[in-house]
Amino acid sequence: MNIILFEKDEIFDNQIVLTDHRATHIVKILKADIGSRLKVGIINQGRGTGEITEIHKKRPHRVHLTVSIDEKQFSEPQLDLILALPRPIMLRRILSQVTALGVGHIYLINANRVEKSFWDASLLQPEEYREHLKIGLEQCTDTRLPTLSLHDKFRPFIEDLYPTVQKNYKNSIVADPTGTLKICEVVKEDPGKTVLAVGPEGGWVDFEMTKFNEQKFSVCNIGRRILKVDTAVVALHGHLSAFLDV
Amino acid sequence: MNIILFEKDEIFDNQIVLTDHRATHIVKILKADIGSRLKVGIINQGRGTGEITEIHKKRPHRVHLTVSIDEKQFSEPQLDLILALPRPIMLRRILSQVTALGVGHIYLINANRVEKSFWDASLLQPEEYREHLKIGLEQCTDTRLPTLSLHDKFRPFIEDLYPTVQKNYKNSIVADPTGTLKICEVVKEDPGKTVLAVGPEGGWVDFEMTKFNEQKFSVCNIGRRILKVDTAVVALHGHLSAFLDV
Repeated sequence: MNIILFEKDEIFDNQIVLTDHRATHIVKILKADIGSRLKVGIINQGRGTGEITEIHKKRPHRVHLTVSIDEKQFSEPQLDLILALPRPIMLRRILSQVTALGVGHIYLINANRVEKSFWDASLLQPEEYREHLKIGLEQCTDTRLPTLSLHDKFRPFIEDLYPTVQKNYKNSIVADPTGTLKICEVVKEDPGKTVLAVGPEGGWVDFEMTKFNEQKFSVCNIGRRILKVDTAVVALHGHLSAFLDV
Repeated sequence: MNIILFEKDEIFDNQIVLTDHRATHIVKILKADIGSRLKVGIINQGRGTGEITEIHKKRPHRVHLTVSIDEKQFSEPQLDLILALPRPIMLRRILSQVTALGVGHIYLINANRVEKSFWDASLLQPEEYREHLKIGLEQCTDTRLPTLSLHDKFRPFIEDLYPTVQKNYKNSIVADPTGTLKICEVVKEDPGKTVLAVGPEGGWVDFEMTKFNEQKFSVCNIGRRILKVDTAVVALHGHLSAFLDV
């Protein structure tokens, strides 16, 4: 936890009292004391400093802070992600990793090779996935929470929803072994807001690729190494960051 | 497991009999049969096909293969990694992920902020870490095993060993927040075999940075987001892959 994050409605008159895992972190890990100044942030607002005015070091831990927000959050990442819904244990890690790396919006979509049961995961409840996005923010010291939407049918997503957001993107890229383009060739030419679609383990099926092609996605090949989805997403983020402001 | 890997001395006269987890994988996951042709490889040799000549589908599983090696392994990755020894659980994941992505040699080194106890991890035994490198190969379908060396003292590594290998590298890069260069600026100019040094959680200390500077490493800043080491290594690999053949 490299920044202590609050929700906006937790703060009143620049004062906040923490009694949960954040208080424990301040006492046990940061070993802070009265007068200590900590890096803090309000989700989707900004970053600043919290000065400890009172601290109870015995359980139950309690920390009183006076908060001053004087730094902007990081600028909006130029990358959105379309992700075929992965296995929950992998999705958890991906959510915190891409949040730490910087992502604007995450579309979690269905695909032929997505296991039906993944859609029943409790992780898809906003209060659950939000925790993993927050872990990413606490790691990277930002306060800008990515947004996320669920699309449990592929065809309505690609035929109906995508055309309404397409205008937001300079580049729409789908990663697939059939691709003849390289990502850098596509993005280098016209850097700007990009959406990247990453398939399930086993890849997209022909029907899905037809639909991406109909929507004029650039089909990019990411080499002959077969990667796990979580490795691929992070490596592709790093690859794109050579060209985009993420 | 996208390729079934063998050690060279397991094969005799192009025949191999598997009785371990590979046999179980072929029976239970691939659901293969007599006559099935599987993608196989011999470590550090090459890739090809294994045809099943006999299969015992009940436990204990046993599979007989006739092996034909007719494809080269992937070319040697242009990236080596200097990594401050991470926590074993994280190192395991990093070893298989960077092997899947492609890495030539991994120098695991000490640093001020490496916990002493990490050097006692059984994972640092060759027979243990080799398993995690092999998991990476099984994922990406290559047979070229990265090499790995342990350097439990920082100073002898950077002052004595590094100068003997420096000539192998066109670019030596260390990632650090004090860096004024961008990785892409360094590598774009003169792509070629590169070594990248990634520090421990908490970063390199001043003494270590002085030593990297003395050895003429390019000090590159990777942005203001603080990343976990495993996220950083994979994202940096992806970033470098925009310029290098990895």
